Amino acid sequence: MPHIHVLATGGTIDKVYSLSGELEIGTPAVETLLAPVLTDLTYDVTPVLALDSLDMTDADRVVLCQAVDALPGRHVVITHGTDTMPETAAFLDAHLAAADQTVVLTGAMRPSAMASSDAAFNLGAAFTAVQLLPAGVHIVMSGRVFSAGKVAKDRERGVFVDQP
Amino acid sequence: MPHIHVLATGGTIDKVYSLSGELEIGTPAVETLLAPVLTDLTYDVTPVLALDSLDMTDADRVVLCQAVDALPGRHVVITHGTDTMPETAAFLDAHLAAADQTVVLTGAMRPSAMASSDAAFNLGAAFTAVQLLPAGVHIVMSGRVFSAGKVAKDRERGVFVDQP
Amino acid sequence: MPHIHVLATGGTIDKVYSLSGELEIGTPAVETLLAPVLTDLTYDVTPVLALDSLDMTDADRVVLCQAVDALPGRHVVITHGTDTMPETAAFLDAHLAAADQTVVLTGAMRPSAMASSDAAFNLGAAFTAVQLLPAGVHIVMSGRVFSAGKVAKDRERGVFVDQP
Amino acid sequence: MPHIHVLATGGTIDKVYSLSGELEIGTPAVETLLAPVLTDLTYDVTPVLALDSLDMTDADRVVLCQAVDALPGRHVVITHGTDTMPETAAFLDAHLAAADQTVVLTGAMRPSAMASSDAAFNLGAAFTAVQLLPAGVHIVMSGRVFSAGKVAKDRERGVFVDQP
Repeated sequence: MPHIHVLATGGTIDKVYSLSGELEIGTPAVETLLAPVLTDLTYDVTPVLALDSLDMTDADRVVLCQAVDALPGRHVVITHGTDTMPETAAFLDAHLAAADQTVVLTGAMRPSAMASSDAAFNLGAAFTAVQLLPAGVHIVMSGRVFSAGKVAKDRERGVFVDQP
Repeated sequence: MPHIHVLATGGTIDKVYSLSGELEIGTPAVETLLAPVLTDLTYDVTPVLALDSLDMTDADRVVLCQAVDALPGRHVVITHGTDTMPETAAFLDAHLAAADQTVVLTGAMRPSAMASSDAAFNLGAAFTAVQLLPAGVHIVMSGRVFSAGKVAKDRERGVFVDQP
Repeated sequence: MPHIHVLATGGTIDKVYSLSGELEIGTPAVETLLAPVLTDLTYDVTPVLALDSLDMTDADRVVLCQAVDALPGRHVVITHGTDTMPETAAFLDAHLAAADQTVVLTGAMRPSAMASSDAAFNLGAAFTAVQLLPAGVHIVMSGRVFSAGKVAKDRERGVFVDQP
Repeated sequence: MPHIHVLATGGTIDKVYSLSGELEIGTPAVETLLAPVLTDLTYDVTPVLALDSLDMTDADRVVLCQAVDALPGRHVVITHGTDTMPETAAFLDAHLAAADQTVVLTGAMRPSAMASSDAAFNLGAAFTAVQLLPAGVHIVMSGRVFSAGKVAKDRERGVFVDQP
């Protein structure tokens, strides 16, 4: 049975509402989302960055890339903001050192702290995809599976689509 | 892009709390669970049965089998109670007419109407698995993917495991 | 500022879903319900009974009555199953030793663990009523305030009404 | 039995998360919050303003004041942002035409759309207070009841306190 490494980078999925009325990046939502899932899978969750993905630079992506490279296992799920998820996927695809890791990026259009959110659905999708997909970098969003470099976000509709 | 057929049969995922203080099978939870998932996927949801899976007979399974056979598409997700999900998967595997359908059974250990439930995670897992797996009958539960005939439910822990 | 004593007796408000698919009385829901309420109020929560209120006997009510009598403060909220809440209110009204306590019974028509429940609304109502009402035994349910002995539950509609 | 008029003015209680990642004032949350409360009470909900309360001007407060004056009934609940709720309460207290209305302002420190929010608790508190309090303008927040002019918000802790 695979061990799954989860790396958290912030983004909408991890946003919480502060006392001053602002949205902030909280602790990784993955632990809370996985709490009701009784499973023999093992996993660990590591916060690597805590950014709105619009603020993510290539220097941040180098940090993320190094974090993936340093993982001992082959199954990697990355939670990420949606706005630049395609850019980060392409960056990882170009720069990851190992050829045998399956890396799946996912996130959410609404914070997991909202009563109605796509976060749990997307995480279930990502955990399944990372077990079934071959090595490479993938995005799992909007109920679909995309390869790095072949995906874009339609910001007006909030839907991930094939790269036009 | 695949069209996904969802067949609902009842089970814990669809349980609601009645005014008289009993748990009852409500309308299929899938529609509510998919509401926050913005997607270009198309799908339809058909209630076929509305049973606690402990009450499901082989006559019920014949009805379900015929419902799957009658579907025009190849991608089928079935929501089902957990207690006899392995039995139903084995039955479908033995009796389905077509050889080219990918059928994924899923459900939940806690009703989707609970504030904390595995239902959304499991549905995201099932929707992904049905797109990635080859033809055949599969169970997606407990964060894992199982083939019909090779899976059991550990009732004490509420975890799906490899058939011992 | 008043200190509020909360006594939990079980009932629907505290029901949780077990792995075996049954509803059971869990730990008092009040702590979880109060978590998002930032307040200078002080309160304590004591589990006294853990019963479906249909199973509550007068011996149980004596235990509850003694627990109320033993409280040092005057502001008491009791969470209770709905089916016999009017009976317990009348019993307390007849048997409480002190004349200066304000006792408010409340509960919920749906478990607080459901995504949609009246539990938080009812608890806010009870905490307010216990501060505003004179000494005596009261029920706060269905958005209204009733005196012990003048209230009944319309079981078909799930609504508390004036005693006919 | 009293009829309760609810006037919505926006504020945190009504905030929703937009596709572009911003918090916006949505439709009044009161209807959704009251959905699980089975009751013989009657009420109506009118959106009067849709503002972050930091943006509320005295011109807006005149509009709100006129809306209260125009109500036929005596029981009025106003949902309002927390930051200037004390100012609006004082304004209404000084300017309302009728002497026989009980007006209760409430709101929430976290949006009612969050999985964990004080919104339902506060609304239950407000609905109870408006039935029990004498005529005048009141604030019900942080589990307590305050009179207009005698209340302040401690912004650092997110708690309403007695006016120092």
